[in-house]
This record gives sequence, C-alpha cells and structure tokens, in this order.
Amino acid sequence: MARNPQLNANGELIHLLSTEGLPKAILTHILDTADNFVSVSDREVKKVPLLRGKSVFNLFFENSTRTRTTFDIAATRLSADVYTLDIARSSTAKGESLLDTIANLSAMAADIFVVRHSESGAPYLIAQHVAPHVHVINAGDGRHAHPTQGLLDMYTIRHYKKDFTNLSVAIVGDVLHSRVARSDIHALTTLGCPDVRVVGPRTLVPSDLSHMGVRVCHTLEEGIKDCDVVITLRLQNERMSGALLPSSQEYFKSFGVTPERLRWAKPDAIVMHPGPVNRGVEIESAVVDGRQSVVLPQVTFGIAVRMAVMSIVAGNVA
Amino acid sequence: MARNPQLNANGELIHLLSTEGLPKAILTHILDTADNFVSVSDREVKKVPLLRGKSVFNLFFENSTRTRTTFDIAATRLSADVYTLDIARSSTAKGESLLDTIANLSAMAADIFVVRHSESGAPYLIAQHVAPHVHVINAGDGRHAHPTQGLLDMYTIRHYKKDFTNLSVAIVGDVLHSRVARSDIHALTTLGCPDVRVVGPRTLVPSDLSHMGVRVCHTLEEGIKDCDVVITLRLQNERMSGALLPSSQEYFKSFGVTPERLRWAKPDAIVMHPGPVNRGVEIESAVVDGRQSVVLPQVTFGIAVRMAVMSIVAGNVA
Amino acid sequence: MARNPQLNANGELIHLLSTEGLPKAILTHILDTADNFVSVSDREVKKVPLLRGKSVFNLFFENSTRTRTTFDIAATRLSADVYTLDIARSSTAKGESLLDTIANLSAMAADIFVVRHSESGAPYLIAQHVAPHVHVINAGDGRHAHPTQGLLDMYTIRHYKKDFTNLSVAIVGDVLHSRVARSDIHALTTLGCPDVRVVGPRTLVPSDLSHMGVRVCHTLEEGIKDCDVVITLRLQNERMSGALLPSSQEYFKSFGVTPERLRWAKPDAIVMHPGPVNRGVEIESAVVDGRQSVVLPQVTFGIAVRMAVMSIVAGNVA
Repeated sequence: MARNPQLNANGELIHLLSTEGLPKAILTHILDTADNFVSVSDREVKKVPLLRGKSVFNLFFENSTRTRTTFDIAATRLSADVYTLDIARSSTAKGESLLDTIANLSAMAADIFVVRHSESGAPYLIAQHVAPHVHVINAGDGRHAHPTQGLLDMYTIRHYKKDFTNLSVAIVGDVLHSRVARSDIHALTTLGCPDVRVVGPRTLVPSDLSHMGVRVCHTLEEGIKDCDVVITLRLQNERMSGALLPSSQEYFKSFGVTPERLRWAKPDAIVMHPGPVNRGVEIESAVVDGRQSVVLPQVTFGIAVRMAVMSIVAGNVA
Repeated sequence: MARNPQLNANGELIHLLSTEGLPKAILTHILDTADNFVSVSDREVKKVPLLRGKSVFNLFFENSTRTRTTFDIAATRLSADVYTLDIARSSTAKGESLLDTIANLSAMAADIFVVRHSESGAPYLIAQHVAPHVHVINAGDGRHAHPTQGLLDMYTIRHYKKDFTNLSVAIVGDVLHSRVARSDIHALTTLGCPDVRVVGPRTLVPSDLSHMGVRVCHTLEEGIKDCDVVITLRLQNERMSGALLPSSQEYFKSFGVTPERLRWAKPDAIVMHPGPVNRGVEIESAVVDGRQSVVLPQVTFGIAVRMAVMSIVAGNVA
Repeated sequence: MARNPQLNANGELIHLLSTEGLPKAILTHILDTADNFVSVSDREVKKVPLLRGKSVFNLFFENSTRTRTTFDIAATRLSADVYTLDIARSSTAKGESLLDTIANLSAMAADIFVVRHSESGAPYLIAQHVAPHVHVINAGDGRHAHPTQGLLDMYTIRHYKKDFTNLSVAIVGDVLHSRVARSDIHALTTLGCPDVRVVGPRTLVPSDLSHMGVRVCHTLEEGIKDCDVVITLRLQNERMSGALLPSSQEYFKSFGVTPERLRWAKPDAIVMHPGPVNRGVEIESAVVDGRQSVVLPQVTFGIAVRMAVMSIVAGNVA
C-alpha cells in the first residue's frame, strides 16, 4: 500500500490508526482543534451539534470500560448517536468473521467505528474494507498503537510546556509491551521533540530501540535527569511476576517515581500516566497527588482530543 | 381470541407479533412506509423526530446483539429514547415473573416493547397484558415468528422484483426450526406470491408443509429451478451434528448454494440470507459476495422496515 | 463533620445520601417538585430540557437493573446524557481504588453520580471527594440507606393519604437488613407521622429499635391493626433458609399479607412494596393485584421523584 491509509488523496485525515507516519501538520491540526473543545465540557450545556444524526459504533473486541467511556462521552458531546456493541456476545461469537461483522454494521449506515482489538493491525484491516464515507479510529490494537492516548499526551505536554522543540521527555516503564509508548514516541519525534528517552529494566526496555529516535536508559536517574516531562506507563499485572520482572516491589525499588527521585528532573517537570495508576508500583501516591502530576488533566484533555479526531475525520471523505 | 391481537377495532396495527394473519393492505402499508425511511439513513442527519420523547424498551430474553442493534438504531433514528435491559441480570433472575416485569416497565411509561424470547408466544402474552397505549414488537420468539425479518425480506424482494404475483421464491435450509422461514412464507402467500418452495433434507423440511401453501422439494435443483429469489437460512450449529444432520459438510454437499448450482435459478435471481452467514455451509463465499447477493441490502432495508413498524404502531391505539 | 454533608452553607440540597437528617422543608420540596414531573411521563413528548447537556453517570457497584433503569429514565426525561458504567468489568476490577475511579470520571466533566454500592457509606465517601459542581445520589448503600426509594414511598403515601400527621404506618418484614425500611422510617418521622410500627419476627425486627421513634410489633395483627399504610419489604432469598428464618413458607404463615389479614388494617389502607415482589412470601397475589395495592403507582412515582432529586441538586452548588 503506497499511500498512508490514514489520509485521502488530498492528504486529509480519514482514519486515525496510528501516530506513526502522520505529518506534523495533521498532528498540530488535531491539537488545535482540541483546544476549541476543551471549553465545551465546562459549559452549562456540554454539547455541540457537529455530529448530530451521525452513528458512532464502539467496537471493543478487547474490554476497556475507561477508554470506551471517554469515546462515548466525546461522541455524545458532539451530538452523535453512539451504539456500543457487546462484541463478546455478538455474532463474532457465532463464528462470523471480523470483516462480515464490519460489512453488516456498515450496511446499518455507520459513520465512525471506534475499534479496540487485541490483535495489532485489526483497525487497519477494517479501514481497508469500509465504504468511503466510513471512518475508523483505533482505540488500541495489541501492542501496536493507541493513537488517541498518544495525542492526548501531546496535548497535555503542549498545554504545560508550549513548545516541543526544546523538551526532554522520559517514558518510564514497560516500553516493550506498551502501545502508549509507541504512539507517544512517534508523535513526539514528529512534533520535533529533540530528546526522547525510554527508561526501564533491560527486560522491558530493549537496547535496540534507537531506530525509533529515542535514547535508551536503564537507570531512572539517567532517564529522568533534567527532563521536562516524565511519562510513566502502567505495569500490567501479568508482567509483574515471572520471567520479565521478579515482582512489583522490585520494579518500584528501581524505577518507581517518588518525590525524592523526581528531583532529578527539572523543578517544573510534569508527571503523566495513562491510568489506571498502580499506586506504589510505577509511581508513589505523593507524586500522583502532588503538584507536578497532570494525570487528571490528561483525562479531561482526552475527551477534547477524541472530539477533535472524530469531528476532523467525519469532515473528510476517502 | 376472536379478533387478531395485532389489530385494533379499526383494523389498524397496534402490535407486530407475526406476519401470519396480517392483511395484505397492512403488509403493503409497512413496505410503503419503509420506502420513506430508506433515505433517512443516507442523510447527513440520519434522524426524523417521529418518536421524539417516546420510550422504547429492548427486552431481549434471548441474546441477539445484531437484531437488538438494528432495533436500537431504528428507534434512535426516529428520535425515541431507547432503554436496553440486561434481562439476564435483572429482576426476572430474582424470580420475578415475565408479567410482573412487564407491569413494572409499563408503570415507567413505556411506549414500545421490543421482545425477543426463546418461548414461542411470549410476545403474545405480553401484548395481552399491556395498557392500550403500549405496543409490542416481536423480535423473534422461539421457532414461531420473526416478523420484522419476514418484512425486511419482503421489502428486499419487492425492491428488486417489483411485483410478487409472478414470482417463484425458494426457501432453502432448516425450515423446520426457522422462525424466519415461517414469517417469510406467511408474508409471501399473503402478498400473492404464487410459487413458494421449501427446500432441504427430509429431516429439516417435513413433507407435510403443504398446508402452508408451499411446495416441498428435497433436492436443490428441483427447489431453485427457474426461481426468482433464493432465500437461504442459517444452519444453527446445534443442528449440524447429531440426529438431524450428519455434518455441515454433508449439508453443503447437497444444499449449499454455489455459483454453479445457482445457474439452475433464473439468471437475474437474487440470493438472500438473514445473517450471520456460515460461509461454506449454507452458501459459498463466491455467492455471498457475488453480483446476485443482496445480503447487505437486506441489512440496510431492515433498519427502514423497523422504523416503519415502530412509527406505524406508535400512531395507533388499542 | 459538623455540617450535614447533603446540604451547602445555604442549607440547599447538593447530594442525596440519606433521608436521615434532611429537614422537613427539603423533603417537602422534593415531593412538591415531583408533583410537576408526574405529568411529564404522560405527555406525548416525555421530556423537559432541564438537564440538557449534563452528564449523569450510573455507577452501580452492586447490580440492580430495575433501579438503574429508573434513574436512566429519569435522567433521560430531563434531557441529560446518561453513561452507565459496567463497574464489574472496569478499572476497579484492575485494582483501581474507588476514589481514583471517581476522580477520573470527575475529570471527564461529570455532573451527577448515581451510586449503588454494597458498602454502607460509599456514597458519603464519594460526596466528600467530588468537586463543588458535582452531585452524588445514593441509589442504595449496603444496609444503610435507599433515599430515593424512601422518598417515592413518601410521595405515594402523600398522594393517597394527603397528610402525614394523622397516619399509622406499618413496615412489615426484614427490617433489620432493609435500607428501604431505614429510609422510610427517617422520612416518616421527619414528615410528622405519629405512629410508625415495624413488624416481623424477632430475628428480623430487633426490639431495640425504639430509638428510631418506632413501635416494634412481633405479630402481624398488632402491627397492622387500624393502620393506614402497610409497607411490605422484600424478603431476600439468602435470608429464607438458615439461622434467621426457618423458611419462606414459615414466614408467610406468620407475616404474609393476605386479603383476610389485611382487614385488620383500616378499610382504605394502602399496601406498598418496593419490588420485586415475592408473591406468596411477603404478600399474597390477591393483595398485590387487589384494589388496595399501590405497588405499580410506586414505580410510576419513582421516576418523578428521581427527576425531582436530580433537578434540585443540579441547581445547587457546594
């Protein structure tokens, strides 16, 4: 496939599948559009009629109440009609293929599919098979990408730090398995961030990530030294015991962000986390609830960024 | 019960429980009304305010994500408020009777109940006990009836073939257990279709169906010979092994619709299926995705037909 | 905590957590406001725009399809956007704390949380931690309180009996474990009801309840003798066998309300039940369906009372 499947022939965004390969102008346009939507959630009437009468389908093949809810809220505040399919109980359980399910839902006159899937690439497959007026938004596919999380992280960084071109950003944790890390790295490098570091034990942060334009650090001190932004990643429970990591306590001892260690970063560094936080594993409670934490603003901005993405793709045709 | 429970004293439709016993004028009125709604789903704003402020309750005692979603979409595009009850987790699980559940929901000022139930007749029982302003739509009851599927099949046939009075229609598959087949047969004969054939092995198509006004055929060639419409039925997994059928491969060998066998029908014959399709069992992929297949238009028309049924019953009083 | 956490500094209702401690003027204001909403559900368009663009989150940590649906309907008829979180599958299942979940949902710009929780006091904890513009409504917490049920019971009694100050009200059943009974008792005594009796076996109705301003009766005859209102409580299945109660039949033999026994009460006494009814356990079918039963009007009034509570709290700020 020669052309970026996320863009139409005019270079306009028609699907959001990954932050990888998206031009800087598109990323910036999404963040600028989100600016307009941040205030909508503060209004008495938290709605704009931009997607009135449009049909948004939440297709969560992998469960995530939190992410699904943020998309539900974003679509509803754009006045769309939202249909959430309980995929586990649906026809796919009867042996229907993914593409047959999509074809059927398309025939119901869908406008946007929000897709989460445990298989990397599933949203791409869907995007290749929908009609020209239908848009696909990746809400997380396997270990591959979680572009709206990446974009809300960019929105948050820009909100607090204004300019990417002189920032040091550290991503701490299970980078190897993290679609959030991957989406953040691609967006940061595209937006001109000159110093992106990935930080964690060798089992979770392989040394050969330099092709992504990042610096690999295996100690927290080196990793967050003088940086402006510390993005902590969620440590999945299933990694905490076994071959990759001896225990969550061991992880915390070396890479948990505490108030003391945070002093290695710049005094005005912000601390981020995609949630839900494992307090006392990735990060100490005093940091989560402290003055440098922007974990809750991330959630708020996430609604606005998802409104921006939906309203932008809905305005373009393949 | 002397009067047809689906009609009021003026002969107007107040419940849709079965295509059986509905006069031709009512069936035609539903199809004509659906005509107006097909275009709604193509609009920028896919909504009309006909049921604004009405309360539609989806009561699916038997699970069906696909059918439930189509009713949800139809009601939402009519601007109704839709409440979907997770019946399995609700008070019926606490030992409350069906009629107590209905009485309670009626007291919440319901306007329409959309009911799917594994017991044949459950929607009739409910219709007998609701207040005069409340309407019941059968979304499938046991092996008895699935009238909106029957009506969307009629809409599809009329769309492609215009007139019922000179058509040959073949219904192929597990006719014995199919509420779709039953609803199709009643609608076809009422609408004046002179040649309805039911086709399948003796275990699934009993010979004594002639009282329904159909011809029984036990070979596919005889069944679809020169016909205009081939309706294939879904073969339920639970029938594929055991006494009724040796295996799904065996079934396909004799009754699966392939491009070659489809040549027995008229060259412009259409092929239908209620979905979800078991590719390679009832029908070969080349047929499902071929030029004669109208499987996806059926889905699109299904939304319009359900909008038509809801808007018609909501306008009448018992 | 010196101030009643349900009221702001001006004495206005900002959360509904319990009927206990609410002044008579507030209770009466809720019932008067509900009067205006009873007619809304009878209209052609069952909606008022009072909460348009507001976000109501249903947080049911304990399952209850019926109560959840009534809140869903009430919020929808006020034109709010309703988000129902499947808490069991959500981040709390991933080990996130209750307060982290609430903080995250607040960051999504929630206006009202409707909370049901198996732990007494959970809604209080939440109310203490939300932002000043966010409101918490208790939809049942442990054995503690179910204030909207208490208020709809008060609405029903006032509707049929006009004045509380000369009434005798009997609450029959498992008072010990009933949050409904507790909410009813506090509301009745605040509203000036001079004679509240609690009736049941010693295992379910402890003798030391007199501090609540009620009379304890251990026979049904003494309990409902000449009373105006009989509130029957649901007997939970889990109590029916074991230490507290020999069997449901035994309970019915002594405390089940039959047409014959109901003659002990005043001839115009009304019979109430919070539902779902165990016919033949708390109450005989002939009574549930009889002329003195107001069980279904309770359901109807419950929608109006919940609309009243939501519209009142949404108008006030902490």
